[in-house]
Amino acid sequence: MHAIVDHIQSVDFNVGEKTRAYLDTLTKPPGSLGELEALAIQLSAITGMAKPNVSPPHIVVFAADHGVASEGVSAFPQEVTAQMVANFASGGAAINVFARQIGAEVEIVDVGVASTLTLPGVTLAKVRASTANMVVEDAMHAEEALAAIEQGVAAVERAKKAGANCIIVGEMGIANTTASSAMLAAFTGVPVAQVVGAGTGINSAQLAHKVAVIERALRARQANADEPLDVLAKLGGLEIAAMTGAYLAAAAHRTPAIVDGFIATVAALTACRLCPLVRDYLIFGHRSHEPGHATALEALDAKPLLSLGMRLGEGSGAALAFPLLQAAAAMLSEMASFADAGVSNKAAP
Amino acid sequence: MHAIVDHIQSVDFNVGEKTRAYLDTLTKPPGSLGELEALAIQLSAITGMAKPNVSPPHIVVFAADHGVASEGVSAFPQEVTAQMVANFASGGAAINVFARQIGAEVEIVDVGVASTLTLPGVTLAKVRASTANMVVEDAMHAEEALAAIEQGVAAVERAKKAGANCIIVGEMGIANTTASSAMLAAFTGVPVAQVVGAGTGINSAQLAHKVAVIERALRARQANADEPLDVLAKLGGLEIAAMTGAYLAAAAHRTPAIVDGFIATVAALTACRLCPLVRDYLIFGHRSHEPGHATALEALDAKPLLSLGMRLGEGSGAALAFPLLQAAAAMLSEMASFADAGVSNKAAP
Repeated sequence: MHAIVDHIQSVDFNVGEKTRAYLDTLTKPPGSLGELEALAIQLSAITGMAKPNVSPPHIVVFAADHGVASEGVSAFPQEVTAQMVANFASGGAAINVFARQIGAEVEIVDVGVASTLTLPGVTLAKVRASTANMVVEDAMHAEEALAAIEQGVAAVERAKKAGANCIIVGEMGIANTTASSAMLAAFTGVPVAQVVGAGTGINSAQLAHKVAVIERALRARQANADEPLDVLAKLGGLEIAAMTGAYLAAAAHRTPAIVDGFIATVAALTACRLCPLVRDYLIFGHRSHEPGHATALEALDAKPLLSLGMRLGEGSGAALAFPLLQAAAAMLSEMASFADAGVSNKAAP
Repeated sequence: MHAIVDHIQSVDFNVGEKTRAYLDTLTKPPGSLGELEALAIQLSAITGMAKPNVSPPHIVVFAADHGVASEGVSAFPQEVTAQMVANFASGGAAINVFARQIGAEVEIVDVGVASTLTLPGVTLAKVRASTANMVVEDAMHAEEALAAIEQGVAAVERAKKAGANCIIVGEMGIANTTASSAMLAAFTGVPVAQVVGAGTGINSAQLAHKVAVIERALRARQANADEPLDVLAKLGGLEIAAMTGAYLAAAAHRTPAIVDGFIATVAALTACRLCPLVRDYLIFGHRSHEPGHATALEALDAKPLLSLGMRLGEGSGAALAFPLLQAAAAMLSEMASFADAGVSNKAAP
């Protein structure tokens, strides 16, 4: 991981400022395309290009299981992780549908599913079979967290070699909102009850139980909030570590990464704690219905492009936001200027 | 117009309810795709189809001038309407860029530009050259408003014949936020100052002047709020009337129409006042930065899909929202069910 962090540089603010000025020459009232203009500026700064290109996007979905699932924190049984990986591999999940719509390749990476999977279309990169139950012991060793980060880096390297100009990272892992809430509480000091939600759909009694489980884990693990790797290893997940690595690698490759919902944002926060320069390479796709997402976004001073009340994960909210990046890039490369089009940009008399 | 209103029927709530139930069989936690699920239900109800298809979308941009521009209410001179029509025709405006991205045909219709245009790619359907200055006289006669509505109907009929499965309506007309604010104040009784904004970019002194101009027009015209045609003719615009007709025709053809920003929403409100059944055929694309939009949306109990701080018009916000309709439709036609994919939808033990 240290190798990849050494390759991360600041985005190019000069190119971004040139794009800001260029936008005011285009045939529209200044600023009238709102956040799309901010997005165009960011894409220029990320890529260092006056006319950035974000296509094709690549989607990487990391899957892993969580030992804490045995505490009964999820609405679905642990087997659903492996079943959904099979669904991804056969193209039937929401993320597959949205990927086809935006012309994205999808790679499914098993970094820690509990059962042994041998499915065509699934990259085997298992660091270990599931994390341990964080209430009882550290979710994983620091070396395992690092190895999972490296798997995330490697997946982005493969996507870049295949021509990706935008990275979307998704996840699947029953109980991974529990791990994410625990990490977020550890990072921010916000009370657990504020950052815990229904996940895939537990009721209020189960929610109270989930809060109690996370509080027990936080007391037992005593993760050091100033050491992102310590938080990740003790409370996190293998797919969350891989996502962290993917964001680091996207930044190292000066490639925009669209961050999905709650779990992805906790991974993004971890990447930014490891290397603050990563932040400017991240574009936030969708504000999740999961309550902890607001806290995670605030910690990153981030405002997602979409807010559609979704809470699915898989990278779905990021994939749905991709056309807005494409529109921002097309605005820069295709729109006419006032001068070219012979349109007056003088004030009315 | 009465002919088209007679063809408008209620959306098919039965088909919508079947889609609601079907969504819960798909491989995702129930409700986890949020507003995309509501959108899928609405698209089913609009089209009467279990697996609706929204592609291809067609965009119609109606252009017209406003006599009230002579009161100095806009940041841009009136000539910009015709100049931007030329820009649309040559494919350099924002709406052209976004149209190409979503694979939409664009038709530009001159229903009332002040100058005589003979441009390839512009449909000549001029009802009159500009409206009159509503401070001094009615913007147009009732017959002219009806004729402009008919031009909107005709444009949608052409789009439907060409295969359109989704209608996006845009506008261009210097000073048309002034007309829209006047109409909205007349319809709702909300104070003018609450529904007036900077349009294409006037300063605060010009804004106060714009409010005063609209207040004078409202006093002078005494439009009857219970007579949508009276409000439209006395205070509206030719492009606003055409948009009104387009929404009526989309509903008559059971075709979803994506409503753009402030001006489009005032036209949509006019259509719904003429025939309340239209409301369920409308999908709202983008929450404009223009302050009157909130009032117009509230009057229609509408919540736009996007909120990106834009205030351009042309249909741009609606075009950017189109991929979400496409995603909702694809979810219904392509996602695997729990049974098909062998994924457990039983509660965790």
